[in-house]
Amino acid sequence: MGQRRIAIAGYGNLGRGVAAAVGQNADMTLHAVFTRRDPSTIDPPTPQTPVLPWDELLDHRDEVDVLVLCGGSKDDLPQQGPELAAHFTTVDSFDTHARIPEYVAAVDAAARAGGNTSIVAVGWDPGMFSLNRLLGEALLPEGGTYTFWGPGLSQGHSDALRRVPGVAAGVQYTVPSPAAIDAVRSGSRPELTTREKHTRECYVVLEDGADAAEVERAVVTMPHYFADYDTTVTVISAEELAREHADMPHGGFVIRSGTTGGGHDQVVEYRLQLGSNPEFTASVLVAYARAAARLNERGETGALTVLDVAPSLLSPKPVDQLRAELL
Amino acid sequence: MGQRRIAIAGYGNLGRGVAAAVGQNADMTLHAVFTRRDPSTIDPPTPQTPVLPWDELLDHRDEVDVLVLCGGSKDDLPQQGPELAAHFTTVDSFDTHARIPEYVAAVDAAARAGGNTSIVAVGWDPGMFSLNRLLGEALLPEGGTYTFWGPGLSQGHSDALRRVPGVAAGVQYTVPSPAAIDAVRSGSRPELTTREKHTRECYVVLEDGADAAEVERAVVTMPHYFADYDTTVTVISAEELAREHADMPHGGFVIRSGTTGGGHDQVVEYRLQLGSNPEFTASVLVAYARAAARLNERGETGALTVLDVAPSLLSPKPVDQLRAELL
Repeated sequence: MGQRRIAIAGYGNLGRGVAAAVGQNADMTLHAVFTRRDPSTIDPPTPQTPVLPWDELLDHRDEVDVLVLCGGSKDDLPQQGPELAAHFTTVDSFDTHARIPEYVAAVDAAARAGGNTSIVAVGWDPGMFSLNRLLGEALLPEGGTYTFWGPGLSQGHSDALRRVPGVAAGVQYTVPSPAAIDAVRSGSRPELTTREKHTRECYVVLEDGADAAEVERAVVTMPHYFADYDTTVTVISAEELAREHADMPHGGFVIRSGTTGGGHDQVVEYRLQLGSNPEFTASVLVAYARAAARLNERGETGALTVLDVAPSLLSPKPVDQLRAELL
Repeated sequence: MGQRRIAIAGYGNLGRGVAAAVGQNADMTLHAVFTRRDPSTIDPPTPQTPVLPWDELLDHRDEVDVLVLCGGSKDDLPQQGPELAAHFTTVDSFDTHARIPEYVAAVDAAARAGGNTSIVAVGWDPGMFSLNRLLGEALLPEGGTYTFWGPGLSQGHSDALRRVPGVAAGVQYTVPSPAAIDAVRSGSRPELTTREKHTRECYVVLEDGADAAEVERAVVTMPHYFADYDTTVTVISAEELAREHADMPHGGFVIRSGTTGGGHDQVVEYRLQLGSNPEFTASVLVAYARAAARLNERGETGALTVLDVAPSLLSPKPVDQLRAELL
């Protein structure tokens, strides 16, 4: 079989990660990057990769096996996901948890109508964490599931931080409480409050003339984002922000603590320690792109999530080899 | 839909675990336990569960949705697996890693001929660990996979220990090296020798007149089992053995350490901390029994492994509910 042809729709951090991930998979080739910006302003991921304007996407329908949608969940994907699923087999990392059912339904209708396959909400949460929450409760029906996030940079909370008057720039790290994790790992199945599970660490660069104490008060009392947490605010320089806080590490834990029928405690833990959140998400997208292509080749059309995909479809290796090597 | 009817073939530690696990799943009922021993000598798992002689198995073909095979991998399953797959949809925990491909082939032929579905080599290793090895290399193609076992009681090594002259009884614990695990978690991708990864702790009860030093020497120099490890031998009384070493805890780690295309390190860890190895294995078997029944209802016959099964098939919840709750 020839290489599968991957294209990228939307070229920010995630799109760059997808381009890099395709380069690590010998059974795939990067056909093109599509952007809504002026293509001439964009550095292509490799000298051979065309960067093309968005409105040429449909001209490439027959040359693309899987289109990886790298837009944002708030404004881009709710429109692009269904629209493009009508024409391409797609994968995306739609991550507005509460709206996933309606998003799946919209993409499913479009993909079926177009004879395409879409795997949506792919990444680590939703994604690998969802898969592990499912495995946890299916394997240990009597028990509790705990998700911790971090230590890592949260985009949503960093955005909220930057909206505070007096803040010129800043980042927010979500830090899981070691004491809470230890309690869960022990199998004691504690009831944990929001405040007990995570702390939030903010690093801010102040605008000229801003009052540090006033900024701190505004941050730590902000409802929804910070008020329910023990939050620290550290003022730093723009230079330190650029030097020390440019990476996007993240990660977290899904822990299932259960008791089997004979009364024994069992603890299952899945943990991610990610040097780069967008690069890892991109790698997951690319593995599911392989699965989407295979499912489409089998005639399985419509929208699926990671919960519906047999693991062997993610690997470039034939099933016989996987059985011999991994079982 | 009514409850799925589960039967158990072979009633040792694993079979008892399966009976207990069925009791935790409201969509299943335990039809019967089949044994090669005299059924009148066996305590049934519940007062309502018939314990029946092995040679009546085929009479129950139409009343059993899934037969869970609980025999041993060395002598029982190589024969029973294919034989019973001809007549029943089955799951089993065949765990002789090197012989899994031929076992899959034998069960596959029988299951297809009988219109049945068999999921084989189910448990945690092979099983959940295999699944995580696959996910690790599919998501992070450039990297290394590390499996550590324990801390836990190893049946195979305990059996070897008990064959040493002078040993009346004993157990062996496999203990992963904390230093090795830390090195792998750091992302440094060390090359580890067998001796660096695990230690082995033996607790033995001596036969009357046996020489402790001689027993220790025989254990620590035993090829394949102990000679390649740092092994300790502790002599204890029969009372202490019964009091302190009756449980069968186990567990371990699968860690994938990789680098994504942009050069960032990523570490994924799956960890099991099992109060009872047979009860956890049994719980995994029962979840895959649900999947086997569903696959058979869809007409997907033949032998599969955990690598081939979509995760959502393991849960009693409908897919829409899983998406809303877990994604």
